[in-house]
Amino acid sequence: MNLEHSKFSLTIICVQLALLILFILFSCYKSDADASDVKHSTIPAYGGATPKQNSISHYDSLFQDVHVMIFIGFGFLMTFLRKYGYSAVGYNMLIASIAIQWSIICRGIFHHDKNGLIPVDITSLINGDFAAAAVLITFGAVLGVTSPFQLVSICLIEVFLYALNEYIGIELLKAIDVGGSMFIHTFGAYFGLALSLVLRKNSESESKNEGASYTSDIFAMVGTVFLWMFWPSFNGAMAEGDDQHRAVINTVLSLSASCICTFAISAIVSAENKFNMVHIQNATLAGGVAVGAVADLMLRPYGALIIGSLAGLLSTVGYTYVTPFLQSKLNLHDTCGVNNLHGMPGIMSGLAGAVMAVIASETDYGIGLYKQYPAMAPEMNSSHLQELRKDLTSIEPGDGRTAGQQALFQLLALGVTLCIAIIGGAVTGLIMRLPLFGQVPDAHLFDDSKLWEVPEEEENVETHKGETNQSFEMKSGKE
Amino acid sequence: MNLEHSKFSLTIICVQLALLILFILFSCYKSDADASDVKHSTIPAYGGATPKQNSISHYDSLFQDVHVMIFIGFGFLMTFLRKYGYSAVGYNMLIASIAIQWSIICRGIFHHDKNGLIPVDITSLINGDFAAAAVLITFGAVLGVTSPFQLVSICLIEVFLYALNEYIGIELLKAIDVGGSMFIHTFGAYFGLALSLVLRKNSESESKNEGASYTSDIFAMVGTVFLWMFWPSFNGAMAEGDDQHRAVINTVLSLSASCICTFAISAIVSAENKFNMVHIQNATLAGGVAVGAVADLMLRPYGALIIGSLAGLLSTVGYTYVTPFLQSKLNLHDTCGVNNLHGMPGIMSGLAGAVMAVIASETDYGIGLYKQYPAMAPEMNSSHLQELRKDLTSIEPGDGRTAGQQALFQLLALGVTLCIAIIGGAVTGLIMRLPLFGQVPDAHLFDDSKLWEVPEEEENVETHKGETNQSFEMKSGKE
Amino acid sequence: MNLEHSKFSLTIICVQLALLILFILFSCYKSDADASDVKHSTIPAYGGATPKQNSISHYDSLFQDVHVMIFIGFGFLMTFLRKYGYSAVGYNMLIASIAIQWSIICRGIFHHDKNGLIPVDITSLINGDFAAAAVLITFGAVLGVTSPFQLVSICLIEVFLYALNEYIGIELLKAIDVGGSMFIHTFGAYFGLALSLVLRKNSESESKNEGASYTSDIFAMVGTVFLWMFWPSFNGAMAEGDDQHRAVINTVLSLSASCICTFAISAIVSAENKFNMVHIQNATLAGGVAVGAVADLMLRPYGALIIGSLAGLLSTVGYTYVTPFLQSKLNLHDTCGVNNLHGMPGIMSGLAGAVMAVIASETDYGIGLYKQYPAMAPEMNSSHLQELRKDLTSIEPGDGRTAGQQALFQLLALGVTLCIAIIGGAVTGLIMRLPLFGQVPDAHLFDDSKLWEVPEEEENVETHKGETNQSFEMKSGKE
Repeated sequence: MNLEHSKFSLTIICVQLALLILFILFSCYKSDADASDVKHSTIPAYGGATPKQNSISHYDSLFQDVHVMIFIGFGFLMTFLRKYGYSAVGYNMLIASIAIQWSIICRGIFHHDKNGLIPVDITSLINGDFAAAAVLITFGAVLGVTSPFQLVSICLIEVFLYALNEYIGIELLKAIDVGGSMFIHTFGAYFGLALSLVLRKNSESESKNEGASYTSDIFAMVGTVFLWMFWPSFNGAMAEGDDQHRAVINTVLSLSASCICTFAISAIVSAENKFNMVHIQNATLAGGVAVGAVADLMLRPYGALIIGSLAGLLSTVGYTYVTPFLQSKLNLHDTCGVNNLHGMPGIMSGLAGAVMAVIASETDYGIGLYKQYPAMAPEMNSSHLQELRKDLTSIEPGDGRTAGQQALFQLLALGVTLCIAIIGGAVTGLIMRLPLFGQVPDAHLFDDSKLWEVPEEEENVETHKGETNQSFEMKSGKE
Repeated sequence: MNLEHSKFSLTIICVQLALLILFILFSCYKSDADASDVKHSTIPAYGGATPKQNSISHYDSLFQDVHVMIFIGFGFLMTFLRKYGYSAVGYNMLIASIAIQWSIICRGIFHHDKNGLIPVDITSLINGDFAAAAVLITFGAVLGVTSPFQLVSICLIEVFLYALNEYIGIELLKAIDVGGSMFIHTFGAYFGLALSLVLRKNSESESKNEGASYTSDIFAMVGTVFLWMFWPSFNGAMAEGDDQHRAVINTVLSLSASCICTFAISAIVSAENKFNMVHIQNATLAGGVAVGAVADLMLRPYGALIIGSLAGLLSTVGYTYVTPFLQSKLNLHDTCGVNNLHGMPGIMSGLAGAVMAVIASETDYGIGLYKQYPAMAPEMNSSHLQELRKDLTSIEPGDGRTAGQQALFQLLALGVTLCIAIIGGAVTGLIMRLPLFGQVPDAHLFDDSKLWEVPEEEENVETHKGETNQSFEMKSGKE
Repeated sequence: MNLEHSKFSLTIICVQLALLILFILFSCYKSDADASDVKHSTIPAYGGATPKQNSISHYDSLFQDVHVMIFIGFGFLMTFLRKYGYSAVGYNMLIASIAIQWSIICRGIFHHDKNGLIPVDITSLINGDFAAAAVLITFGAVLGVTSPFQLVSICLIEVFLYALNEYIGIELLKAIDVGGSMFIHTFGAYFGLALSLVLRKNSESESKNEGASYTSDIFAMVGTVFLWMFWPSFNGAMAEGDDQHRAVINTVLSLSASCICTFAISAIVSAENKFNMVHIQNATLAGGVAVGAVADLMLRPYGALIIGSLAGLLSTVGYTYVTPFLQSKLNLHDTCGVNNLHGMPGIMSGLAGAVMAVIASETDYGIGLYKQYPAMAPEMNSSHLQELRKDLTSIEPGDGRTAGQQALFQLLALGVTLCIAIIGGAVTGLIMRLPLFGQVPDAHLFDDSKLWEVPEEEENVETHKGETNQSFEMKSGKE
């Protein structure tokens, strides 16, 4: 154990040092966070922006909302295991911290300035949170069966592949996905499932420790509800104006529908027709995933309700039938059921994105169509572009794609995401099986007490009135 | 049980389908969430608003704050019952989801465009949260003694009456109530009390399950504190400029005073002069309710302190003396004591609204008086209006009410609210007594385990070091 | 006990009454919260600001974020004691409420208008939260060993000294400290340590009740994570434009580094090389403290990482070695280890502030240097000032300090803060030893049940399936 932990400590110190060196070499403040760039300062005489116009005032509360989803939302959602709460919320914080820093570097490979420097601003932090989300979804698939050393290693590999996939999908394929349903949720889920399949092959993942307590289930609801509430900010963070406005409306409506359908279906499919907390903790959120890729589009309020309802249905059915099926047939262990919350609803969202692209037209979007789908803008020098620019000079030349072509590219982005996620996850699983990384022994699965100092139950203390039965003492180095 | 639950599932599926059809028929995006409306798009060439000027950027963080109050605040406040936490936070989420959708339709009956369509925007969602708040207050009165089927049915009736009462109060009577102390808190509380009185008439509401545990009390404080913190956004969400500024200041000061007074009074009135968590969880919030109807007015900081202090006093005394009195005299069971937190402080706020109207003058508000109290603006074609319009062309003609008349209309709105709430709640209680709706058997009161799969206590697992006594296993379909 | 509590109740009623009278005499709304000041109303015809330009729209979400840190963050962080959760979150709310009101008066002594009135606006509330933070840090040092009567008294003394020290540091010494690392964290921590040293001199602070449970540790993580997430808003709340932008970036990066280093060091220094929840709950936050005084400066991303890493290291080592050392050598009891989280990292931040001042130049800040460090602006009538004003008319004359002089003033402010905090804390400790204030008997340390009604463990209830072992009943006045 000591050896394992020293390896872990040494590794993450090296990781932080390496990240520090990369930041020294390659990072700088973006212009409107840079005091020496007077154009973006608060000094009007220099043509500086007023405080209101600095991008921080637009993004600050959106960033904070997304931040809450990553650290409270994901962190507490995973505390549902009765003996793994310290690890859930603690490793969540550790992994997300590494992911934020490392994603700035990885995304910088694809988005840097002409001096090779990576300009850091508030959107870097939001995108860092997005990358962290993908890794935390993967964490959900292998919760309780991986060591912190493995988790950090997985994080480093996954964030790079995340940035690569995002670059291919958005920059090369010019697919759109405002809420990251493909690039974050689908990617994180199938990376995690492939990883779990390979990593835990031939392993016994069943454990008497894997289960919830009444208290841990309510802690998990803290995570659920914060994810549920701030999802509109997640889906709308990178949109502007009326696009952002629609993203918020559609996400709220979709989530409310998935919540309602989850309750309906949970009572039907569960044992004794009782509600199941696993469904309520997870499937209520599926509407947020499923609407992600289309949240800013002209989905209309009823479109959002349809997507949310189907997502709640799909996800609840997934928890009841698909997860046990995969477990028994493939020995695929998926601790949090990320396939049901992020995987299948993410694919559903990618497909919805293709459908919405097929029906996208100037009737629905006006000239804004070419901002929403930049690749559908006419090509450079085309007469159509000249004409459009009479109305809107800022329009950028695109690829002149038809709606059908855009739909195919949306599907292509979904396919590429699935490929990179599954292959990447599987290869990462193989790497994690190397002796270097160690394996969590079966007796240590889902159990904080092996790697954390946990309070010991008081046994011989005289009980007096008013004392609760939650009485523990700190166990300190006695074992 | 199965039969009950199938009925529930079938019902809420039908409810969601019906809502979907209503949304298909009657909803549309409001102009600044509609991409086809270029005037509200991000395209300046069309005269479009810049992203900053889209109403989403004004309302987004206010909406998120209110959203937190509804789902975390109300949800966790009600987890104080030690065996009813799943139901509290779960049903809270379900009911609020239905209320948000249904309130958009119900309010649309009174506020639709000339084509009969209901334009949906971010304020629709905030108003949806407000409607949900009223229903959740009612839920608090009957927490633990109603089935989910009953709760959904109550929600459907109450949201309609809520929208009707709000229309009468604001549009017809032209009363003002920025924080909804009358239209949300008073309405929700007395609807719930009348409902509880009729529904539980002749029933035994006493149960050994009704009580808190040390852990459940701390979970409840999560709800309390989030309600307490975000109440300034609740009271200020629908105000603008200096009105919103005052709403925030007054609400913070009022809440701080009610917190201080609650601690003082709790120690005096409680058994053995100890603090009582029920008071701290609830009466500390009374200042937010009591200041609601006057939060945006020229209350001055000391006015806010006076209201908050009195509200804390009133509410704590209510929990200690009024609730037991009503329970013993009328057999009126009020699980969360909503009369003390929302009822009496809501009435107090309504009365304060009348007092503030009486003393409202141009001295305090300048010409803004006629924006604050639109009915006090001079009538169409009056010479006073002509004169005012020299200074402010945008002023709308009103009813030329005097301050005293406005005060009477404020009182009238309070009276109408009480009537609709009490009659509506009582009739709803009668309906809920129909055999169709079933009744929660006494043995099932305040107990999650009857309708939820709950983890079962591990009994025969060998205890080893570091294991806590919170060890459960999932009970699955064995009963 | 009764006597004690009556004294408490009477005292805080008097405190609230006194505050009310002070507010009546001395408070008013600041102009942009005052309806009668048409220039700041929403009425453009009077030259009124539009709603967007009212300062509430800039500060509202920042205020709410800081508010969450004070009430959820500090409140729940201190619930880690297994038998002191009611007190932790309850007294936190009480003390902070008093601090907000009282700080408006105390700061008003130094910042009032020409009529002697204190203009209240949204920044008064943010500054109120800051003052509350200092008191709550002090509360952390003596958590579990002070009565509520003592806590309220300490709060009243400390807030006055806080306002005095802030006035000396910012107005007289013209030191800068955007995140309050000196004026809030260092001040609160050393005030608390000196208080604890004097108050608990010769007392036994060891108690079998002082310890965490598995559940209480997870509640504490709610506090930790909310503090961690919203710290960027804390450090950036009072900055504008690109300064605020940097404050957010630097704080996020510093916190992520301190989180990573805390995990690394915790595993090395802890017993059996296990992670220690005390470290994760606290030292992960040290990066937020340590970057506070320099968060808005041109620290660059790597600078933030260095500070955060060192802070995580320093704080974890502090918990492992420094706290036990001070306990054994000085009998200095520091319940929450505020020396490690707020004290040493606060001093570190003050020193970093001096270093950053030494290297500050127009190269890094452009002409904005004289806004960032107002005392470095040229003196009135100097030719340098004339020249600068050609570019920026709004520049205020300063003291013409060199970078080195500014650094000395930064150190001076740190020194003054330490002096006022330590002397003030020690004197307060002496006062708290007066018989008037009573002392918490050893048997009552760290134990809610002495001053709160706590649920009693159910002992003779027949256990049935589905019942958890967290079964309590309300103990009501039976003892």
